[in-house]
Amino acid sequence: MNADPSPPTRRYDYVADGAEIYRRSFGMVREQADLSAVPADLRVVVTRIVHACGDVDIVPAVAASSDVVTAARHALRSGAAVFTDSVMLASGVTARRMPAHNEVLCTLRDARVPALAKQWHTTRAAAAVSLWDERLDGAVVAIGNAPTALFHLLEVVMDGGPRPAAIVGMPVGFIGSAESKVALAEHVLPGGGQIPWITVHGHRGGSAMASAAVNALATESELA
Amino acid sequence: MNADPSPPTRRYDYVADGAEIYRRSFGMVREQADLSAVPADLRVVVTRIVHACGDVDIVPAVAASSDVVTAARHALRSGAAVFTDSVMLASGVTARRMPAHNEVLCTLRDARVPALAKQWHTTRAAAAVSLWDERLDGAVVAIGNAPTALFHLLEVVMDGGPRPAAIVGMPVGFIGSAESKVALAEHVLPGGGQIPWITVHGHRGGSAMASAAVNALATESELA
Repeated sequence: MNADPSPPTRRYDYVADGAEIYRRSFGMVREQADLSAVPADLRVVVTRIVHACGDVDIVPAVAASSDVVTAARHALRSGAAVFTDSVMLASGVTARRMPAHNEVLCTLRDARVPALAKQWHTTRAAAAVSLWDERLDGAVVAIGNAPTALFHLLEVVMDGGPRPAAIVGMPVGFIGSAESKVALAEHVLPGGGQIPWITVHGHRGGSAMASAAVNALATESELA
Repeated sequence: MNADPSPPTRRYDYVADGAEIYRRSFGMVREQADLSAVPADLRVVVTRIVHACGDVDIVPAVAASSDVVTAARHALRSGAAVFTDSVMLASGVTARRMPAHNEVLCTLRDARVPALAKQWHTTRAAAAVSLWDERLDGAVVAIGNAPTALFHLLEVVMDGGPRPAAIVGMPVGFIGSAESKVALAEHVLPGGGQIPWITVHGHRGGSAMASAAVNALATESELA
């Protein structure tokens, strides 16, 4: 390995200051995206989702319960863990934005997962959700990949299992994704009410949008 | 932790067989996406990119040099390393699809990066590219986050530095992203020719699309 690397000759004209890129990026999002229908406390979250996917047309697909920002932010400040359905999503959660050194956990690679998935006739992503067990209570959940994980989570909750503080439900794809997000938006807890939630309706979603939402829920500041 | 977890009551009607979800997903992509203008050897790559972002409208934005599939696949089979600009992208590369236990490396968190970025007046993502040094020669590069990393990489190559076997250049965002991808598509090496490349033009892109492209370039099979 080169002990003393040197930079190449600058040949292109581009902004190379990280903070300036952030400022201009979020400025562009605000300029190009119509956030007028987005509740005030959700705007920073929607801005970061747009920033993560590079497409202002995603805005109308974002939907959320009215209490999700307050609930998720309070939970994270109180030290809640973040559970994710994929390692990729977990690695997109920015540690320095977490207000209480919150743990970010993914159980997909737990050694018990393959056998449980087989035994339960479900996906590994869904089986992994059941390994969150009682730690799920009061946690923030982010799902960016597997619709089956979101369905399974809702089933755990409807069964009277532990209740997360908030659900970021943004699985991507063509099979079950849109349906799982409708199920999230329409779920009713035993006894009434909902777990606070945010989603991106339709086929789109993914780890980048879901981690962007978690990062924005964790810290209001854009620049971090 | 619960030593003997049990599954919740199934309340929703959804496909819960992983292999079946894959099959149906790729079937939906082929059904809904117009791949008629996509070269035959690139179709599996474009299919996986659509699958990763959940949006068939991305297809016309994908562009590539005619030799990128052959070049990247040959390099990976020969044991080439994969360099990425973000940890998130690295964690999206599926180890079991890599044909030669290929290393997947990201130098963004190298301890030297912050000082080099400051000294060179550039971003940490760009400075991290220079730490790939001679290992870049013959490697496959995937950029899904930082336009500055892609510009910097092109500048390294134009300076007569080490040449990667192929570049997956899909940074996302509103500042420099589209321009960096045009620079990739139009670059000319000293002495002529290009590094084989693939991109998604415009603001869209990201770790999910870039890792999907690497996974498809690594293994032709859809189901893995």
